[in-house]
Amino acid sequence: MNKRIILLATLDTKGEEADFLKNQIEGLGDKTIIIDSGVVGKPTIKADINHEEVALKGGIPLSDLLKNPTRERAAPVMAKGAIKIIKELISDNKAHGIISMGGTQGTSLATEVMRTLPYGFPKVMVSTMASSDVSVFIDIKDIVMFPSVSDILGLNPVLKKILANAAAAVSGMANTTIGIDIGEKPLIGICNVGITTPGAVKAIELLKKHSYDTIVFHGVGTGGRAMEQMMRDGIIGAVFDYATVEISNHIYKGLNDGGPERLTTAGKLGIPQVISPGGI
Amino acid sequence: MNKRIILLATLDTKGEEADFLKNQIEGLGDKTIIIDSGVVGKPTIKADINHEEVALKGGIPLSDLLKNPTRERAAPVMAKGAIKIIKELISDNKAHGIISMGGTQGTSLATEVMRTLPYGFPKVMVSTMASSDVSVFIDIKDIVMFPSVSDILGLNPVLKKILANAAAAVSGMANTTIGIDIGEKPLIGICNVGITTPGAVKAIELLKKHSYDTIVFHGVGTGGRAMEQMMRDGIIGAVFDYATVEISNHIYKGLNDGGPERLTTAGKLGIPQVISPGGI
Repeated sequence: MNKRIILLATLDTKGEEADFLKNQIEGLGDKTIIIDSGVVGKPTIKADINHEEVALKGGIPLSDLLKNPTRERAAPVMAKGAIKIIKELISDNKAHGIISMGGTQGTSLATEVMRTLPYGFPKVMVSTMASSDVSVFIDIKDIVMFPSVSDILGLNPVLKKILANAAAAVSGMANTTIGIDIGEKPLIGICNVGITTPGAVKAIELLKKHSYDTIVFHGVGTGGRAMEQMMRDGIIGAVFDYATVEISNHIYKGLNDGGPERLTTAGKLGIPQVISPGGI
Repeated sequence: MNKRIILLATLDTKGEEADFLKNQIEGLGDKTIIIDSGVVGKPTIKADINHEEVALKGGIPLSDLLKNPTRERAAPVMAKGAIKIIKELISDNKAHGIISMGGTQGTSLATEVMRTLPYGFPKVMVSTMASSDVSVFIDIKDIVMFPSVSDILGLNPVLKKILANAAAAVSGMANTTIGIDIGEKPLIGICNVGITTPGAVKAIELLKKHSYDTIVFHGVGTGGRAMEQMMRDGIIGAVFDYATVEISNHIYKGLNDGGPERLTTAGKLGIPQVISPGGI
């Protein structure tokens, strides 16, 4: 109760649906912070942080964006502004969850924002694109996708139920008391693939005997990158890089490419690491 | 509060994680009904509906499945049994949401079950596969995917937080008071594509003037199929099939294939329909 949920929406096209979400969330005892990411049209409901503020924070005044309003020019500015505003709210403990809704463009913008937010922070995206290849939207983050099933074009009894479910979900998540609570010993990241699993399981057993928690990532490109992001976030404190197949895949442009930064993070941060050429 | 959440899990491999989810859900004041979909190993926690019951309901005794325990043989039996059990629970108003977690195989089995459940009924899947092409798992249903980010191999501080979020989400959703409440006039389904949008928007305006709610589906194959499923479910009571491009895509094996049943449902059910060859 009394948590504050960010509601990121394009208030020119999705004002009615945003208003419904706001009422649902407030009906559960939480508060909303409505951030308008719309550009061209006139907002149909009032924002707490309006689109002029978002654009300005993104580096270009809205009046300037409106001179030549293309999505290609406006979207990165609105995303950049929203990210700055939301990160400030989170670091001031003034926001405890985020919800958004949209079609292809709305999902792109909102998930671009969500991908920059901390693991564990509730992120709910109601999307027409949820039943498709969502890897570009989610990437390595814990973004929860709610299928809207139909288009999001005004309220109807089905969309109301789906939005009510999504509002209840983000409210429930924001009110959990559990956080990512690392114990006294560092959490150990392990990167693994199918053929190295017997060794990884043995390592997990041995580490558990010494009271270490382990977290295993599948070495398919996103796995190793998620592991390294959690190092940067201070979640993972030591690493057993057991299947470094993402490196050879990067060199030879394979499917499981871990990207150019892979295997550099632990070194940069001074995190203890053991590296094995498993699965290459 | 006091809602009953189905927790579908393979208790031989995911007992520890299932037990954590159970405690989270019960800590929120709801109850769990644990259904074991595991086959080969020994369950590590107690089920409310055990795997013998599930297999038997699926048509083959577990002892028989264990003689030649392949996934190909066992999974359809366990899914069939779970579907029957869960549908009975729902029709008796004894279950108000479902949650599951798993890797590739666990996600396949649990979402096969979830795809048969009614729209609006809370369905939460914590999955290692959530940041990929999830269309095969979700298809035309409102299944909510929670990315586990890491593998689900024992508890750790990150997975605990993600499971706690998922438990809070399904509990929140199960406790919503809103349903899919159709008003006095039937909800009108509209199938539309990009180039027919100006006409569809005009139709929505005209229908709204006469107090009809409309629900618009994108004619990409899943859209039309979702619309027809909602006819069968009694949600949609009339249809304006404005962009029948899914038919030509079926005939010529295009990407937006609506399948062999498309355009037959309204006729079979005697639902009023207007058909236009839009977008073909």
